[in-house]
Amino acid sequence: MSGYVTVTFEPAGVRATVPVGTNLLEAGQQAGVEIAGSCGGQGTCGECQVVVANGMVSELTSQERKLLGRELIEEGVRLACQTKLLGDAVVRLPSVQEVVVRKALTAESVRLVPLAPNVRHYDLNVPAPSIDDQRSDLRRLADAMTEQPSDLTATVQCLRSLATALRAEDQQIAVTTVGSQVVDVRPASKRSPALGVAVDIGTSTVAVYLVDLETGKHLVTAAGQNPQTKFGADVISRIQYANSHDDGLTTLRDAIVAAINRLIGQAVAEVDATPADVYEATIVGNTCMHHVFLGLEPRYLAQSPYVPVTAESFSVSADRLGLEMNPQGNVFCLPCIAGFVGADTVGVIVASELTRRDRPTLAIDIGTNGEIALWSGERLLTASCAAGPAFEGAQIHQGMRAAPGAIDEVFLNGDDLVVHTIDDQPARGICGSGLFDAMAVLLELGLVDARGHIVDSRSSGALSSAAARRVEGEGNERHVVLADAGQSANGPVVLTQRDVREIQLAKSAIRASTEMLLEMANLGPHDLDEALIAGAFGNFINPASALRIGLLPEVIEDKIVGIGNAAGVGAILALVSKHERDYARQVAEMAEHIELFRSSDFQDRFAEYMTFP
Amino acid sequence: MSGYVTVTFEPAGVRATVPVGTNLLEAGQQAGVEIAGSCGGQGTCGECQVVVANGMVSELTSQERKLLGRELIEEGVRLACQTKLLGDAVVRLPSVQEVVVRKALTAESVRLVPLAPNVRHYDLNVPAPSIDDQRSDLRRLADAMTEQPSDLTATVQCLRSLATALRAEDQQIAVTTVGSQVVDVRPASKRSPALGVAVDIGTSTVAVYLVDLETGKHLVTAAGQNPQTKFGADVISRIQYANSHDDGLTTLRDAIVAAINRLIGQAVAEVDATPADVYEATIVGNTCMHHVFLGLEPRYLAQSPYVPVTAESFSVSADRLGLEMNPQGNVFCLPCIAGFVGADTVGVIVASELTRRDRPTLAIDIGTNGEIALWSGERLLTASCAAGPAFEGAQIHQGMRAAPGAIDEVFLNGDDLVVHTIDDQPARGICGSGLFDAMAVLLELGLVDARGHIVDSRSSGALSSAAARRVEGEGNERHVVLADAGQSANGPVVLTQRDVREIQLAKSAIRASTEMLLEMANLGPHDLDEALIAGAFGNFINPASALRIGLLPEVIEDKIVGIGNAAGVGAILALVSKHERDYARQVAEMAEHIELFRSSDFQDRFAEYMTFP
Repeated sequence: MSGYVTVTFEPAGVRATVPVGTNLLEAGQQAGVEIAGSCGGQGTCGECQVVVANGMVSELTSQERKLLGRELIEEGVRLACQTKLLGDAVVRLPSVQEVVVRKALTAESVRLVPLAPNVRHYDLNVPAPSIDDQRSDLRRLADAMTEQPSDLTATVQCLRSLATALRAEDQQIAVTTVGSQVVDVRPASKRSPALGVAVDIGTSTVAVYLVDLETGKHLVTAAGQNPQTKFGADVISRIQYANSHDDGLTTLRDAIVAAINRLIGQAVAEVDATPADVYEATIVGNTCMHHVFLGLEPRYLAQSPYVPVTAESFSVSADRLGLEMNPQGNVFCLPCIAGFVGADTVGVIVASELTRRDRPTLAIDIGTNGEIALWSGERLLTASCAAGPAFEGAQIHQGMRAAPGAIDEVFLNGDDLVVHTIDDQPARGICGSGLFDAMAVLLELGLVDARGHIVDSRSSGALSSAAARRVEGEGNERHVVLADAGQSANGPVVLTQRDVREIQLAKSAIRASTEMLLEMANLGPHDLDEALIAGAFGNFINPASALRIGLLPEVIEDKIVGIGNAAGVGAILALVSKHERDYARQVAEMAEHIELFRSSDFQDRFAEYMTFP
Repeated sequence: MSGYVTVTFEPAGVRATVPVGTNLLEAGQQAGVEIAGSCGGQGTCGECQVVVANGMVSELTSQERKLLGRELIEEGVRLACQTKLLGDAVVRLPSVQEVVVRKALTAESVRLVPLAPNVRHYDLNVPAPSIDDQRSDLRRLADAMTEQPSDLTATVQCLRSLATALRAEDQQIAVTTVGSQVVDVRPASKRSPALGVAVDIGTSTVAVYLVDLETGKHLVTAAGQNPQTKFGADVISRIQYANSHDDGLTTLRDAIVAAINRLIGQAVAEVDATPADVYEATIVGNTCMHHVFLGLEPRYLAQSPYVPVTAESFSVSADRLGLEMNPQGNVFCLPCIAGFVGADTVGVIVASELTRRDRPTLAIDIGTNGEIALWSGERLLTASCAAGPAFEGAQIHQGMRAAPGAIDEVFLNGDDLVVHTIDDQPARGICGSGLFDAMAVLLELGLVDARGHIVDSRSSGALSSAAARRVEGEGNERHVVLADAGQSANGPVVLTQRDVREIQLAKSAIRASTEMLLEMANLGPHDLDEALIAGAFGNFINPASALRIGLLPEVIEDKIVGIGNAAGVGAILALVSKHERDYARQVAEMAEHIELFRSSDFQDRFAEYMTFP
C-alpha cells in the first residue's frame, strides 16, 4: 500500500484512497466531491480552488502562481487540478466550491426592482431622556426614526436589551426592524450588516442566495443536495416515507432545516458575517417541500383531492422553525397555488412578471416535477405534470444532476452523434439538457422511431454503420451508447428503452397540459408571445431539441426563452421588495388551477403526444 | 407526645404539631395556613372547606351536614372549624382557600361591558375538500367561520395539527382564535373551554382572575403573596436587588412567573380545566412589576428621569414568557403611563371609566405605592407618591396584609377605643384600613397631637385614664397599644411613634399631590364630582377616617367612593373586551404625567400637610 495515499475532504469529511501522484481534482471525483472548475483540469480557469489543511502535496506550479496571485497563495489556496498528493492529506473546500450547479443557480438574471425590503437598518442618535422628556426608551427610539413604521413594536428579547444598548454609547444605536417590529438594537459600534437569504428548496437541490438588504446586492450563492433525497427521490416517495415512519416528517424536516442552516452558515462566512446578521429569509419550493419545511402534514397532498394544509403566504419567527439566522428574524414563505403547483411556480411568475405582460405568455418550470402557467393576458391558468418527473434525471438509468461529467449537450455529427460533458470531464451520466438533446439526435438519426422504440440496428438498413453500432441489446433491454467506455469515467453512458419511455411520458404530459391550457384560454400556440422555460437547467435547454421531440408546439420555435432558476429569483425579489411580495400574493390569489387529469380530452391528448413528431 | 398529633397541609406541605382534639382551622393558623371563612369558626358560614386526604378526624357534625350538602360530603369535603384531629392527618386545601384576601380581591364590582374578547371559539362544520373544491385546509376553515377575522392566519404549531384535526371527526372541529390568528384546532369532541386570566401583579399580592371568555363570567379568583417580597418589600429595594445580584432580574422574574403559573394552575383546577385552555392573559401592575415580569431592565425606573423601557401596551406569545397557559396564547400587557404610574393605574381608570365622566373626578390608588389620577372633564393628569408607601403596612412596625387577625377597623368607644380584626381572630397586626381608623381615633382621643407626636400621658391631664393607659414608652420609643396581650395572638399590637411619622409622610404626599393636580387643572376640591379610592383595601376604607387625618380635603366628605381592586377589574375588562383594551391605550396616550417633586409649590404643600387637621 506504499503507493497509495488517503485524502480527506473537509467539511464533508469524505475520503478517497488513491495512487501517489493523483491530483486533488481526480481524488475529489473518486471521493464523490465535486470541485467546480470550467477548464476540465487544464489549469487554465483557476476555479478549482482548495486549501490543503495538512499533508504532503506537490509544489506550486507556475500556472497556480499566475492564476491565484500572491494573496490567495499566502492563504494556502491551491488549484486542485495542479496539486498532486505525495502523502496522506486533509483538504478543505471553500464553501463556494460546494455550489453544485454554479451556472444554473446564479441569480444574475434578477430583474432590477426598487429596493423596498421588509428589513430595515437605522443608525440613530436617540435624544437622551430628561425630566422634561420622560418618553419611554422605545418611544424615543421610534420618534428618532426618519421613516417610522406605523404601530412600531419590538420583540420582548429586544426590549430586554434596549435600555442597556441605548446607554452604552451615549444613545448612539443601530436598530434593525422587520416589518413594524424592532428585532435588534445594538450600540452603534456593534452595528451588524442587514442580510437576508432567499431559499429555494428544490426536491433535489437546495440553494441559498445571500443578499445585502441595505444595497440589494446579491453577495453569495450556496447550494447543495437536498438531504431528503436519501429518503426518496421524488415528492411522492418522501410523503410515503413520512407516512410510514415514526417521526418520519420530523426526520425529513430536520434534514432540510439542517441543510439550509449549513448553507446559510457557509454563505455568511464567505462575507465575514454571522448567521445572526440574517434578519429575513424568503422561501420557495414546491408544495410538498413547503409543507415538509414547515412541518405540515404532507399526506393529503398525495391523495385526491390534493389539498394543501395552507397555500397562503406565511410569516413566522425564525426561532420557531429552528432556522439558524437571527432568532427574531422573519421567515416569509411565498404562497402556493395548489397541491402540485407550489411557491416555486409563484416565484417563476414573479421573476418573469408573467401577469404584468400585455400578450399571452407560457411559463414552464421543469424540475423533478413540471408546472405550467399560462397567462392569457387576462387569466392565469396553472396545471401540474406529476406524470413525468424525468427531466431532472431521477428516473433515468444514468440520470444525474448537472454536475461535472454530466452529458449536457448532444450534437449531430454527420451520421453519428457527439456528446459534450460539463467541465469536459469523462462522462459519468446524463442531465436534463443532455436528455433533450440526446432524444432529438436519436430521433434524427433514426435510432428511435416515432413510437419510441429503439430500432433493431440489424434490420434497419437506413442506419449508418456508425450510428447502428451504438445500439446494443434486445427488446426492452435495448439501449443506445452515448459515450463509450473510453469517453467515460465508469463504463459507458447509455440511454435505455425504459429511459425513452420516461421521456415520452414526461414530454407528453407537458405538451398535453400546454395544449389544454391554451384551449381553455381560447388561445392557440401562435397566440403566444413567448414560452419561458425555467428550471435548474432552463438556461441551457436547446429550443430546437425541445421542439424536435415535441415538448412544445412547433410554431413557437423562435419564442422559447430559457429563464434559469426563476423560482429562486422570485424568492430574491420577494426578499428585496415588499411590493414583489405583495405581487406574489396577488399571483397566488388570481391563479386558476386546473386538474387536467380529470378531463378525457387530456387523456386523449396525452396518448396523442406520446408519439414523437 | 401521645397527646399531640401532626397535621400536614397540602399543597403547601406545611406542618403543625397540635394537641389531639384541635380543630383544623386552629391547626392551620398554627401552621401559618390561612383557611378562609367569615364566621370566625362558628360553623355558620360554611366557607372553611378542606379535604382530609388521610388520617383520623372527628365525625361529620350536623352543621357540616347542613352547610355542605350531600355532593360535597361525598367528595370528602369537611369544614375546618368543625373537624377535630384525632390522629396524624394530611389535609388538602382547595385552591380557592388559598385566596388570601378574599373580599378585597373579588371582582364583583366589574362593570358590565358587551362581551368582545380577543379570544374566540368557533365550532365549525368545515366542508370536505373535493376535486371541485381544492381550497387549502386553512382557507376552508376560514371560509366556514361566520364572522371571519380579516387576514386570518395561524401559528405554525396549529397548522401542523390542522390536517389531522380536520379529518379526525369528519371535518367537525373546534377552533380557537386570538385576534386574527388561529391558535388551536381540535376535533369537535376535544373542544376545550375558552378561558382567560386577568393578572394583577401587585408589589405585595398577586391575583389571577379566571374568566370564561365565551360567557364573560368570572369563574375563580386565585391570589397569593408576590414571592418577590423576600427580595425586597417595595419596588425600590427590588430594583436594588436586581442591580446588585448576578441574574438578579432573572431571579425576580422567575419568582413572579412561577407564582402566576401556580395561581393559574389552581384556578383552572377549580373548574376542571387545564392551563392549555387559557388562551389569553391580561396583565396589570405598577411599572416596576410590569418591567420585571417582562424581564425588562428596571434600573432606570429608579433613577431620574425615571423613564420606562416601554410604556406602550404589548402583546407577546405566552411561551415567550414562560407562562403556563396555552403556549400559543397571547399575553397582553396594559400600557403604563410613567415610571411610577403603571398599568395598574391605567386599569383603575378603565375600571372607573374616569375619562368618560362628564364631571371632574379624582381616582387614587393606594397600594404599596400611591398613584393619583385627576380627570378634569378634559384633561387627564397623573402623579405618583413614591413618598409614602406606608398604607399596605410594609413600613409599619406591626403592619400586615388584610389577612385574618389583622386589625382592619378601629372605633371610638366612649373615651377609649376598640378594635376589630379580620375574621374576629386574635390580633396579629394592623392592615391599611386599620391604620386609617387608628390614626383618626388616636387624633380624636388626643393621644396624638396635630404635629404627629404621641403625647406624654402623664403630662396631659385632658386624657381619660383609659386612653392614657394605652401610651407606653418615652420619646421616639413611645407607642400606643391598640390590642393588649389578651386580645392578641403573639403579644400586644401597637402603633409606634415611627409608624405615625410614616402615616404622616404618606398622607401628606397624597394630599399635597391631590391639591397640586387640582390646581394645575384650575379646579378646587368642591369641583369634584367624586373621589374614587382604589386599592386592595379600598372597599373598606372609612371615609370619615381619611378626612379626619387630612388625606383628602374635607369638602369632599360625601364624595368618597371605595372602588376596591379596580386595577384588577381593569385587567378583567381588557380581557373580556377589545374595546376596553383600546380604551386602555387611549387612556395611556392622553395622560399627562406630572413630576410633582420638582415643584417648590409641592414641597411647600407637602410640609404644610404633614400636620393633622
